[in-house]
Amino acid sequence: MLTLYSFGPGANSLKPLLALYEKRMEFTHRFLDPTKFEHHSDWFKKINPRGQVPALDHDGKIVTESTVICEYLEDAFPNEPLKLRPSDPFLVAQMRIWTKWVDEYFCWCVSTIGWERAIGPMARSIPDDEFEEKMKHIPIPEQVAKWRSARKGFPKEVLEEEMRKVRVSVARLEARLNESPWLAGPDYTLADICNFAIANGMEKGFADVVNQKDTPHLVDWINRINERPGAKEMFSKVKRENLARRPQQSAPA
Amino acid sequence: MLTLYSFGPGANSLKPLLALYEKRMEFTHRFLDPTKFEHHSDWFKKINPRGQVPALDHDGKIVTESTVICEYLEDAFPNEPLKLRPSDPFLVAQMRIWTKWVDEYFCWCVSTIGWERAIGPMARSIPDDEFEEKMKHIPIPEQVAKWRSARKGFPKEVLEEEMRKVRVSVARLEARLNESPWLAGPDYTLADICNFAIANGMEKGFADVVNQKDTPHLVDWINRINERPGAKEMFSKVKRENLARRPQQSAPA
Repeated sequence: MLTLYSFGPGANSLKPLLALYEKRMEFTHRFLDPTKFEHHSDWFKKINPRGQVPALDHDGKIVTESTVICEYLEDAFPNEPLKLRPSDPFLVAQMRIWTKWVDEYFCWCVSTIGWERAIGPMARSIPDDEFEEKMKHIPIPEQVAKWRSARKGFPKEVLEEEMRKVRVSVARLEARLNESPWLAGPDYTLADICNFAIANGMEKGFADVVNQKDTPHLVDWINRINERPGAKEMFSKVKRENLARRPQQSAPA
Repeated sequence: MLTLYSFGPGANSLKPLLALYEKRMEFTHRFLDPTKFEHHSDWFKKINPRGQVPALDHDGKIVTESTVICEYLEDAFPNEPLKLRPSDPFLVAQMRIWTKWVDEYFCWCVSTIGWERAIGPMARSIPDDEFEEKMKHIPIPEQVAKWRSARKGFPKEVLEEEMRKVRVSVARLEARLNESPWLAGPDYTLADICNFAIANGMEKGFADVVNQKDTPHLVDWINRINERPGAKEMFSKVKRENLARRPQQSAPA
């Protein structure tokens, strides 16, 4: 039995969600609400002590790290008809260069801007004492630091440097998609899913960088993935968080 | 035919070197000298436009990124008797969590301290105009920034934060090796090779953190890997760079 613990269909949570929907695999989805800090609750830290989503429970065994979960699905279910990893080892390597790049570079710069815009206001809406209490339950010090920076507002130089990296990232994706239909080569793979997890929505959130005029191949690739039946089904079925409206912690459900 | 382009047997270059020696595979080693900035030379940037080692040439196809190369060897040569990737998908996922962690966290903090200590003095020994000329040939802006920081000396706060991360990393390795003989479980895998690439030598360079008293399991694991025939052969055969003695650029060979 498969249970996926995740936020809604965006960023790292989207990766295994989309892989599962693309492969039409049966699984239970357990939504965690980031505005309630559910991923730092004791019950979830028994599942992933690092307090991070996504996490996959496969018959009681827990697999963490979004990209690792995606590759795990390929390894553990080799008989699923849709493969999201090429069979040619050289193309697998190309796929991994792209999944590694998104995890080490692309996701971080987009994430900082996203935290500044969406998490910052949410964090500032939390009273000081409640915020400090929340911080105590976060197991990773770098995550605590990121929450504090978001609440205070990231320094201007940091945001400028991250925007530079966003532009570098977008240029790299556009150049690749100008020469190849999919990131790792002729086939749709985890390279596309893992980069789409970050790039989807940039036509709105980063419209001055990602748009029909400057990055036509990137926009077309985002549209092509959105049009796939797996993506449509995922977006129609999976619950989303609403960062703009933080629920009262003590209100009845 | 296999040709590996790399520095000597340390850090990221060590990963595919050790994998190849462990698997007893035939390959040609092409040593690049970092003190001569050979990895930023035009001939090498035709092989890897990012100007980074290691890079593997397999019958004319180039695979880059040290961890990706290691997995590629498992994919492309499935009949080699020694497997460095488990057969159980759950253990493969554990292996990947460790190879991902070293690439995203452990390697960076150790690297900054290493750059401060070894690359800094070397960079300062280069005259200004020659240094600026070298910088022009580095394709990755973050690498240029790292060279400049090393030459100037990293800020004290950066070094302190990196040392904190070194301690976190070492504690994580020690805890894991206290409960398991190898990082991913019962077998020696790429998780061990990729983390050994960074941890080896820390008993000397970080003796206050990695030592028999405080981290006995980590020290024992480092020793066990050094005693393996593959590691012994690699260290005896593969040329090393000498960062302390920068060769004159214009001197005859």
